Amino acid sequence: MAINLSFILEKAGSVKYEDRPVPKLESPYDVLVNVRFTGICGSDVHYWQHGSIGSFVLKAPMVLGHESSGVITAVGDKVSTVKVGDRVAMEPGIPCRRCVRCKEGKYNLCVDMRFAATPPIDGTLAKYYSLPEDFCYKLPESVSLEEGAVMEPLAVGVHITRQADVKPGQSVVVFGAGPVGLLCCAVAKAYGADKIVAVDINEERLKFAKQYAATHTVVSQRESATDSAARITKDADLGLGADVAIDASGAEPCIQAGIQVLRTGGTYVQGGMGKSDITFPIGAMGAKELNVKGSFRYNSGDYATAVALVTSGRVSVKELITGKFKFKDAESAFNDTKAAKGIKILIEGVEDEA
Amino acid sequence: MAINLSFILEKAGSVKYEDRPVPKLESPYDVLVNVRFTGICGSDVHYWQHGSIGSFVLKAPMVLGHESSGVITAVGDKVSTVKVGDRVAMEPGIPCRRCVRCKEGKYNLCVDMRFAATPPIDGTLAKYYSLPEDFCYKLPESVSLEEGAVMEPLAVGVHITRQADVKPGQSVVVFGAGPVGLLCCAVAKAYGADKIVAVDINEERLKFAKQYAATHTVVSQRESATDSAARITKDADLGLGADVAIDASGAEPCIQAGIQVLRTGGTYVQGGMGKSDITFPIGAMGAKELNVKGSFRYNSGDYATAVALVTSGRVSVKELITGKFKFKDAESAFNDTKAAKGIKILIEGVEDEA
Amino acid sequence: MAINLSFILEKAGSVKYEDRPVPKLESPYDVLVNVRFTGICGSDVHYWQHGSIGSFVLKAPMVLGHESSGVITAVGDKVSTVKVGDRVAMEPGIPCRRCVRCKEGKYNLCVDMRFAATPPIDGTLAKYYSLPEDFCYKLPESVSLEEGAVMEPLAVGVHITRQADVKPGQSVVVFGAGPVGLLCCAVAKAYGADKIVAVDINEERLKFAKQYAATHTVVSQRESATDSAARITKDADLGLGADVAIDASGAEPCIQAGIQVLRTGGTYVQGGMGKSDITFPIGAMGAKELNVKGSFRYNSGDYATAVALVTSGRVSVKELITGKFKFKDAESAFNDTKAAKGIKILIEGVEDEA
Amino acid sequence: MAINLSFILEKAGSVKYEDRPVPKLESPYDVLVNVRFTGICGSDVHYWQHGSIGSFVLKAPMVLGHESSGVITAVGDKVSTVKVGDRVAMEPGIPCRRCVRCKEGKYNLCVDMRFAATPPIDGTLAKYYSLPEDFCYKLPESVSLEEGAVMEPLAVGVHITRQADVKPGQSVVVFGAGPVGLLCCAVAKAYGADKIVAVDINEERLKFAKQYAATHTVVSQRESATDSAARITKDADLGLGADVAIDASGAEPCIQAGIQVLRTGGTYVQGGMGKSDITFPIGAMGAKELNVKGSFRYNSGDYATAVALVTSGRVSVKELITGKFKFKDAESAFNDTKAAKGIKILIEGVEDEA
Repeated sequence: MAINLSFILEKAGSVKYEDRPVPKLESPYDVLVNVRFTGICGSDVHYWQHGSIGSFVLKAPMVLGHESSGVITAVGDKVSTVKVGDRVAMEPGIPCRRCVRCKEGKYNLCVDMRFAATPPIDGTLAKYYSLPEDFCYKLPESVSLEEGAVMEPLAVGVHITRQADVKPGQSVVVFGAGPVGLLCCAVAKAYGADKIVAVDINEERLKFAKQYAATHTVVSQRESATDSAARITKDADLGLGADVAIDASGAEPCIQAGIQVLRTGGTYVQGGMGKSDITFPIGAMGAKELNVKGSFRYNSGDYATAVALVTSGRVSVKELITGKFKFKDAESAFNDTKAAKGIKILIEGVEDEA
Repeated sequence: MAINLSFILEKAGSVKYEDRPVPKLESPYDVLVNVRFTGICGSDVHYWQHGSIGSFVLKAPMVLGHESSGVITAVGDKVSTVKVGDRVAMEPGIPCRRCVRCKEGKYNLCVDMRFAATPPIDGTLAKYYSLPEDFCYKLPESVSLEEGAVMEPLAVGVHITRQADVKPGQSVVVFGAGPVGLLCCAVAKAYGADKIVAVDINEERLKFAKQYAATHTVVSQRESATDSAARITKDADLGLGADVAIDASGAEPCIQAGIQVLRTGGTYVQGGMGKSDITFPIGAMGAKELNVKGSFRYNSGDYATAVALVTSGRVSVKELITGKFKFKDAESAFNDTKAAKGIKILIEGVEDEA
Repeated sequence: MAINLSFILEKAGSVKYEDRPVPKLESPYDVLVNVRFTGICGSDVHYWQHGSIGSFVLKAPMVLGHESSGVITAVGDKVSTVKVGDRVAMEPGIPCRRCVRCKEGKYNLCVDMRFAATPPIDGTLAKYYSLPEDFCYKLPESVSLEEGAVMEPLAVGVHITRQADVKPGQSVVVFGAGPVGLLCCAVAKAYGADKIVAVDINEERLKFAKQYAATHTVVSQRESATDSAARITKDADLGLGADVAIDASGAEPCIQAGIQVLRTGGTYVQGGMGKSDITFPIGAMGAKELNVKGSFRYNSGDYATAVALVTSGRVSVKELITGKFKFKDAESAFNDTKAAKGIKILIEGVEDEA
Repeated sequence: MAINLSFILEKAGSVKYEDRPVPKLESPYDVLVNVRFTGICGSDVHYWQHGSIGSFVLKAPMVLGHESSGVITAVGDKVSTVKVGDRVAMEPGIPCRRCVRCKEGKYNLCVDMRFAATPPIDGTLAKYYSLPEDFCYKLPESVSLEEGAVMEPLAVGVHITRQADVKPGQSVVVFGAGPVGLLCCAVAKAYGADKIVAVDINEERLKFAKQYAATHTVVSQRESATDSAARITKDADLGLGADVAIDASGAEPCIQAGIQVLRTGGTYVQGGMGKSDITFPIGAMGAKELNVKGSFRYNSGDYATAVALVTSGRVSVKELITGKFKFKDAESAFNDTKAAKGIKILIEGVEDEA
């Protein structure tokens, strides 16, 4: 009988199951979690296909997965905030807690970050996973474990929206209506944004965005960035331009249009990842005195806010879960995600028998 | 005898002197100033040569000049903060005071800004110039009218440094050692920056920068942006990267190196103007979660801070004044500025006889 | 026939009606408004009763009223953002636009503010009132003129909540469940606060608060501030303390409990006005490193946000309007407000015949 | 021969020397330091005299001292940033690194803080002391170990000044010219403040303040807070009031005058500790919309900034060191500090023989 069945990326394009030892609690503040649901995201698929993202290169077999929820099955001696049996969402990146960035509250920028399923750190697609208690977020009864697995992309959306400093009454244009773009729309709404304009090339996704959280939708076309910006401004009646633009696509034309669509003094946040170098309208950025910001994963308070938003009903994530596979069929979840079937696909973990 | 002799741009490449009526005080809060010194900047030269900058196009003859100091010769009925005889630096852009941007304190982003020597608004290269009292900044006895004319580029440097939010102990890399770049070095020093690295292609300018305000200098070379960043990081011992990068050059390779030289979470400010569109390392910006900001002219408090910095001796501007021409030789000042002779060239105005 | 019938405070305790000339448009940016609804607030009642508030002392008869909506009946030559017939909420304080505070965006702190019904400036309880176009906020069709009159206290609540920097997921304790306290609850909710605890001595008001916007209510008792804070913390399950405390009562015990109820690093905002000097727990403020902030009226963006919140339905103000009097019965509105009958009492203005 | 001679507070009023075991390195990131200099502060004296401060009560003998520098004599397996022989300043509070406050960068507000010489945590007045490497700050050759011991109060001053958000050109009034008040003056100067007004009852201290860092000094008198504020405003020519007021005295009249001396929108920081409850001008705070902030110890970046300020020569601390005692005469240092002899008294530790 498998002790800790794990779904492993051997090398680019090749996955397998392997039984591994149950992780030890390395610190008295660690807990052991029986992983119950794991969402698959574009980066998982990218590692699966290519074995690397940027400077992160797979050199040894690695457990995949990082968007997970589960049930606590063991706790270290000093654990005080959670207990065995608690249902939790798991934040997948554990920072060093010691560097300047960690100590100033931006632990997402820690240079010694250990992030699940980023080589060489094992991910969460296993029966058991251990992590420090303070990276576990208790789910209230009203929130399911399936929803718990979506806290990771929601935390990404919360961080992007915080970077954008969205305020009640503002207009926000979101480029890209994939999971993160949709969640940015929902979080912007929860932060009080008045106009939320979803922009995508895929009309199906826009239809969903409209009923989900967007107030306006605009279909991308082949056109110049200034034409695109003018069209969005007109369609959504943005006056002198949008207060905030968020790119959740990584696509060069979207980034350019995002800069052009902003009013003077507006804020742009780069949420999506794409080409390393693009043609960028630096002149418009300077003349409009824009704030242009990166957004990398999440940090202090983002996961807690994600759970709070779902708990209070301000953000709903259920409708984003469009597929669910058993652990033994994990590869199918990767195939569907790669094929962009649905929005968010989950893998159901192996339940602890105890 | 000339009433209000003015130096006028007729059309691209063609200047002339013209006697114009003395400006009327349009509001009871306006004052009349006998302009005494005016610095020439790159934008003045650009209008002189090309008749336009971006969407600002000369359509009728316009008085040039916007970096000026002078002596008040008349005041409106309600003027209470300055009086006839006061020596003042003049902030050259008068915002509408009514739009959203004005009322939130970012009046530099006002869409109805009336900015001296930006078509169709006349500039300050005349015997007399009128403006509202609250855009006049009294110079203490210890500050000369020549220094008063340099408050404009210094205010630009103050605004850039404020955008960069430079803090004591930080490292700042400044690309471009022209007047604005040098002033950014000086202001960064006044804000407490520990390392101030000037980067330029011109070794003479770097030599000046070093004795003026920079702690380190690096000569630009033909190399990739990452190589350039690595060299700067090594030469100035910046560890994981600079806290702040400021571009005061507008040059594409500098902008790219500026992004690459930053640590995670660092801040980049675009001070210089160059090409509208460039190749930009958006991937590095996202992965390091940088703050990238435009900086457009100056707003609330910048001019006052400029005067305060010179008054207290924290910033010295005297050594930047490398040439001075009589009003009748104004065109020579433009020629020298165009030829990059010296750092800052002033034109001495016609003194009021009273 | 009355030209511009006005409701005037002659001296403490004595009001009368007087026909006054229709105000002239002093600037080409001014508009004339037929005032339709005016809410009465505690400060109006205070002037009526005492003839002064602090250093503001009535020295000559003054038109009362400052919470008003109306219909534009004339516009100056340069008015471009509104037109005759527009229904608007009117921001009642016109700043100088020239001082340092105005130019940094904090025009509520202008030392030359001209505020309606603050001596010696006439208020809005007249048939006609004139003000600059940029202090008029157009009401969409879906928002009534009655609701428009409530934008003033709502703007107060928006400003307080912005001072408090309320973020999604936070806990907010609001002391005082009068109009401003209730609106603070509603705005905190619109800003995403998770727990909104209303505290008052009046159980009826708390019942209303609960169904209006609060998630928890706590009845004030005679007890020490630390006991009160402990009780609120327990009743609302605030863990280490509240993120934000807002006083909208002005009462000394509430202020003390507000400081005590906060977690380390929390934010307190003083919204209410009461005694000039109180016993204050400065030790707790220091040891918990709190942010304690005043909140004075409203400034950049607050009125616009108020209108946006009502337009989008995030904040509802209809249920706060508990009484309405004809203009000829204005004094009854003052009497009911003084007696704390209902929540917000409106006076209906005399309609323009045109 | 003593192994780890320590200076211990047995109970209120009673100290002794005791030989204790050399501390073990509990974590592989810990280092062992031979303590070389320790400054004595008011809180040390208070524990010595009273055995408690607020809720911190001595229940067992405790080593005193927390303002220390030393030389590293051993390092844990994973230590990478310092090495044996390095001269360091030691930050004396080690937070839990796990709570919400720690993870948002405000580790000074950690509820599980272990702070040297705050019961029941032993302090640094011993031959050896161990702490994590990231709380050691390397001193460059140009900075002495004596100066290293003053980094602690300087970090307090840095934190207060950061809380005050002092900007170049601003006016700052500092109440209290003891070590922390003087250091606040020096840091405010390093941050670019234009006017720095020291206020104290002791004219000798003010004389020192003037030559050390203050631009103006005002002797406290028996008078109302508004009279005191008016006098300071006049003497230092502060116009509409000071931008920033810092209390480093803890005295009620100073706190009141600090609030009164501010301009509208100004910032007050409570640096000193005194009575828990005082009479406070809450009305002035509200009407001027002040920011009033606590300041508790120091957090992210403060110690590093302190070392940077001394290294660059922006802040000088040598002249504050007015007395030095051998370790065997430690009690004399406490007596002199209690008697307010001089400014900062150091105790020289027992040198490691190796």
